[in-house]
Amino acid sequence: MDKFINPRVLKGFRDSLPDAEIQKKQLITVLEKTFMLFGFVPIDTPALEYSEILLCKGGGETEKQIYRFEDHGNRDIALRFDLTIPFARYMANNINKLYLPFKRYHIAKVWRGENTQRGRYREFFQCDFDIVGTDNFSSDFEILLLMVKSLNSISINNFKIHLSNRGIFNRLLKQLKLEEQSVEILRIVDKIKKIGQEKTMLLLESFTDKSSISKIIDFITPESGFKDTLNKITDLAGGKNSDTERLSNIKLCIDELELENVFSLDPSITRGLDYYTGIVYETYLDELPQIGSICSGGRYNNLTSLYTKQPMPGVGSSIGLDRLITAINELYKDKTYNSSTRLLILCLDNKYTGYYHKLATLFRKNGIETEIYPEKTKLGKQFLFAEKKSIPFALICGEDEISKNRIIIKDLSKRKSYEDITVKEAIQKIKELSV
Amino acid sequence: MDKFINPRVLKGFRDSLPDAEIQKKQLITVLEKTFMLFGFVPIDTPALEYSEILLCKGGGETEKQIYRFEDHGNRDIALRFDLTIPFARYMANNINKLYLPFKRYHIAKVWRGENTQRGRYREFFQCDFDIVGTDNFSSDFEILLLMVKSLNSISINNFKIHLSNRGIFNRLLKQLKLEEQSVEILRIVDKIKKIGQEKTMLLLESFTDKSSISKIIDFITPESGFKDTLNKITDLAGGKNSDTERLSNIKLCIDELELENVFSLDPSITRGLDYYTGIVYETYLDELPQIGSICSGGRYNNLTSLYTKQPMPGVGSSIGLDRLITAINELYKDKTYNSSTRLLILCLDNKYTGYYHKLATLFRKNGIETEIYPEKTKLGKQFLFAEKKSIPFALICGEDEISKNRIIIKDLSKRKSYEDITVKEAIQKIKELSV
Repeated sequence: MDKFINPRVLKGFRDSLPDAEIQKKQLITVLEKTFMLFGFVPIDTPALEYSEILLCKGGGETEKQIYRFEDHGNRDIALRFDLTIPFARYMANNINKLYLPFKRYHIAKVWRGENTQRGRYREFFQCDFDIVGTDNFSSDFEILLLMVKSLNSISINNFKIHLSNRGIFNRLLKQLKLEEQSVEILRIVDKIKKIGQEKTMLLLESFTDKSSISKIIDFITPESGFKDTLNKITDLAGGKNSDTERLSNIKLCIDELELENVFSLDPSITRGLDYYTGIVYETYLDELPQIGSICSGGRYNNLTSLYTKQPMPGVGSSIGLDRLITAINELYKDKTYNSSTRLLILCLDNKYTGYYHKLATLFRKNGIETEIYPEKTKLGKQFLFAEKKSIPFALICGEDEISKNRIIIKDLSKRKSYEDITVKEAIQKIKELSV
Repeated sequence: MDKFINPRVLKGFRDSLPDAEIQKKQLITVLEKTFMLFGFVPIDTPALEYSEILLCKGGGETEKQIYRFEDHGNRDIALRFDLTIPFARYMANNINKLYLPFKRYHIAKVWRGENTQRGRYREFFQCDFDIVGTDNFSSDFEILLLMVKSLNSISINNFKIHLSNRGIFNRLLKQLKLEEQSVEILRIVDKIKKIGQEKTMLLLESFTDKSSISKIIDFITPESGFKDTLNKITDLAGGKNSDTERLSNIKLCIDELELENVFSLDPSITRGLDYYTGIVYETYLDELPQIGSICSGGRYNNLTSLYTKQPMPGVGSSIGLDRLITAINELYKDKTYNSSTRLLILCLDNKYTGYYHKLATLFRKNGIETEIYPEKTKLGKQFLFAEKKSIPFALICGEDEISKNRIIIKDLSKRKSYEDITVKEAIQKIKELSV
């Protein structure tokens, strides 16, 4: 009879304790408010989909990571591993019930059976926002502006968005007659920040000659300012064209909103993923560049091409919520998120229980989070509970106080008591002291 | 090349369209605020757990419904099918990082491969709130009060909570020497509202004689008031005891908070589930009793008994979120939830894009959800977009207006224009008209 089940979570999975959960919920609430201010609406999709749908784009890497199995009806199904492919399927399914351009955000869990050694988790949140149904530069800029404003809304102010346009790079490669190797070359160049210029050049040697390599390196090395860099890559890629024009237009918007300091044109940004066709971007924190990009994305012009002939251009970005929380906890070490309970009503006798619940209702009506210790125990134990849950105020009310219709409030951090006061006075006092 | 993947969702699963998603999010936000007012804190657990843990309690029914499979590391894992068992595992795992009594809420998706014929879904939300670590009646009442207040917070005011105490029923069965058949009898009695008294009596005949059946039927038939019912069941179950005392104490609290009209003592409520040991309750809407209980639960006194010797009494309740949304949409048919965007800035020329984004920023700073049509098209198309997304105001700004630093605002529902006004005036106007 002494055989218990060992309570444990799966490797790569985590329980969320209250303080962490409160912090995450607060962040998400603020982000959602910002998304709504820009007219983005929330959607949700099932966690489980047909494997055929999720694996459409996937090469071997996705296949290895995806949680895939057969259901009771012998369907080949899997857990979503990102929010982009379900969104593509969603647009193909629901286009008749929606309108274009369609702006959605989606904050939800995804699952990947990844190697957990590098501190990666097998269950994590993604936070995506996209505009689909238009190829205009205004949407490109809107996503960039929303990246800035959503990070600002959660007190992230010192960062730089590195921006580029994959279309221009493709034109350079065409000039160098390297179109056919473009995917491999883009992937090598994408890693230059990690592996350095020398290693990059070495890797490129398997694809082309020294002269072309030197042009590629020149191309991906930014000049001191946005415009100088744009001029240089325009020249190298064979002169002005619709892709360079798009960057010029985006730059005009950046200037109009006085965001010059936030953006840098960085032609080394290519984003490894195949599906990007236009502008691409990554975001690095000034104080914590080593944690990597906290918000990345780009323009893709064939989101639903696997499901329908109807073209569906789009542009979007994704905030790495877990990475961002790590960053915030690093940047604001002293800020703690905990139980927002403000008042604990102590239990002096079980016979006052109904009275305590009535008192609690009065405080809650005034927006003060209030709880009641559920049974008579030593007061020391009840105070310890308040301390463990970081509750700043306690209410004491026994026979004397009830007969006088008064209460005692204790400010636990300042160890100060306010005796024989009315509930109304107590509400005012707690509100004053909470500011 | 013309072969597309058929975009489709799995049977029993649903996409959430923006309006439905906004409604659900608003409901959840209000519920969470109420939970926090009572000092309940949020937690989260992994969607995937070891099958051994999830199936601990389960008989054949759970086994048949659970999504279970092997992961890449040959672990036998499954998707959670409720939030109670993961919570039990969570408490056993994290007790040292928490404090008792612990009050948590958890709103999250669960998955069951159920028969979808009865309008049930295979992916749905549960919303649970529990107090663990205390066996006091104050906690019982707190859960009941929170049920009332959380339903009130989402404008559900006409409902009745049917309350009972399984402990008293068990005492009756002991009197009748029917302890050994108690699980079966409780399950039959639990269905009396569905199958009627006659059928119930017929089913009970396989367990006992007519005299006992008549006592059981007498027991589960409420009298006109709480106290009369309590007196009757106290007598039938052999006099006063700790279980009848608990109901008396809860009744005192109900009276103290003047909630007599919300609660009814209904001894036919037993809740089928094995793990309840004390009070049990179900909630029915006055106007829509046929949709079934929208909020149910009870006291269980051995939550973590499968993992540890340490006893962990608890009491909790669960709101059926999907059922509640159905009810709300039935009760408030005319209320629509849609895009909260209030202002659409029309695009008269792509060259003003930066200016439009700057204008949008000013409105957003004042809390007005604002979006920009991303490219120059016929104005009719842009107005149609506003209509489809139910955006009430449009902003028009061309060369003339820009030169004068003025704008035009159109109230689209009233077809009224406000010409040559400043942004400040427009903000005020929109706020006035939005009330």
